[in-house]
Amino acid sequence: KKESNPNYSNRGMTLEEDLNETNRFYCSRNIAIVHKKPTPVQIVQVDYPRRSAAVIKEAYFKQSSTTDYNGVYKGRYLDFEAKETKNPSSFPLQNFHEHQIAHMTQILEQDGICFVILSAFGHIYLLPAGRLIHFWERMKDGGRKSITKAEIEDSGTLIPIGLHPRIDYIKAVEALYF
Amino acid sequence: KKESNPNYSNRGMTLEEDLNETNRFYCSRNIAIVHKKPTPVQIVQVDYPRRSAAVIKEAYFKQSSTTDYNGVYKGRYLDFEAKETKNPSSFPLQNFHEHQIAHMTQILEQDGICFVILSAFGHIYLLPAGRLIHFWERMKDGGRKSITKAEIEDSGTLIPIGLHPRIDYIKAVEALYF
Ligand SMILES: [Mg+2]
Ligand SMILES: [Mg+2]
Repeated sequence: KKESNPNYSNRGMTLEEDLNETNRFYCSRNIAIVHKKPTPVQIVQVDYPRRSAAVIKEAYFKQSSTTDYNGVYKGRYLDFEAKETKNPSSFPLQNFHEHQIAHMTQILEQDGICFVILSAFGHIYLLPAGRLIHFWERMKDGGRKSITKAEIEDSGTLIPIGLHPRIDYIKAVEALYF
Repeated sequence: KKESNPNYSNRGMTLEEDLNETNRFYCSRNIAIVHKKPTPVQIVQVDYPRRSAAVIKEAYFKQSSTTDYNGVYKGRYLDFEAKETKNPSSFPLQNFHEHQIAHMTQILEQDGICFVILSAFGHIYLLPAGRLIHFWERMKDGGRKSITKAEIEDSGTLIPIGLHPRIDYIKAVEALYF
């Protein structure tokens, strides 16, 4: 591995923070417009105090039926989920949910660009959704419940880590899909 | 106006419900994959009762920095906002916010397909974002604070109302952008 791509682990930042910074960078330079979707919440009770803003008094986190990020790059639809593991040798598929896999399948059928950004083994990878769906199907057919490190190195594209943007995934998108 | 496009008003359904039904129809037939984004909420306090789900005890509605709907159609990125007015003669621009106009401008620069769906004057129109931005700029330059009925009939595309899907906006998208 090149020294220009140092280990991603233990930087004190979360993958989500790094992706948000990256998306702000892309947005500010008109490179791509990508946003994280708001966390879905089931609202049960709202108070409307006089002269002040409505207060949500009871609500619950809902499972999202889609992925976390979507947006546009050169007119094309981009859609991805970001996940991390501390597992040193494989990426557990339990990090994904059936409805997310179903959503990714639909996006691919509609010719959208769909992938996952994986933080694993000290690196960041872009894994195309088609490959993830392949490993998911293998599990459903009784196979292993994870993707091995070798499989990720083989099927994924290493994303360079930098300062600004931190996770330059559009470089990998450009190389893979354009 | 043709009888096949009866008045949209007073049907007891909201525009949002009709669009959600339409998007479910598109999704189930692989015509397009479009979702409404979750309402953004600022979470202040969460309780974690033992053996049960986390309960959000204090939260506030946040202004969205984007539009309400986005998704993919034939690989292209789709992005739109839906708005209604009861005003019989014009569409007030106060229905939109500066940051939504800024978002639409960025989407157009990235070659995304961006528009608004307007419920007005008993009909549903697709108005391309470029036209909305034009009327918004006119207001900022000291001009009128609304879009006249004649301007909407001129700049917008009438969307046929049906039972299933209720608001077949992809027909207008296909005619205008493909
Ligand atoms: Mg997630
Ligand atoms: Mg709205």
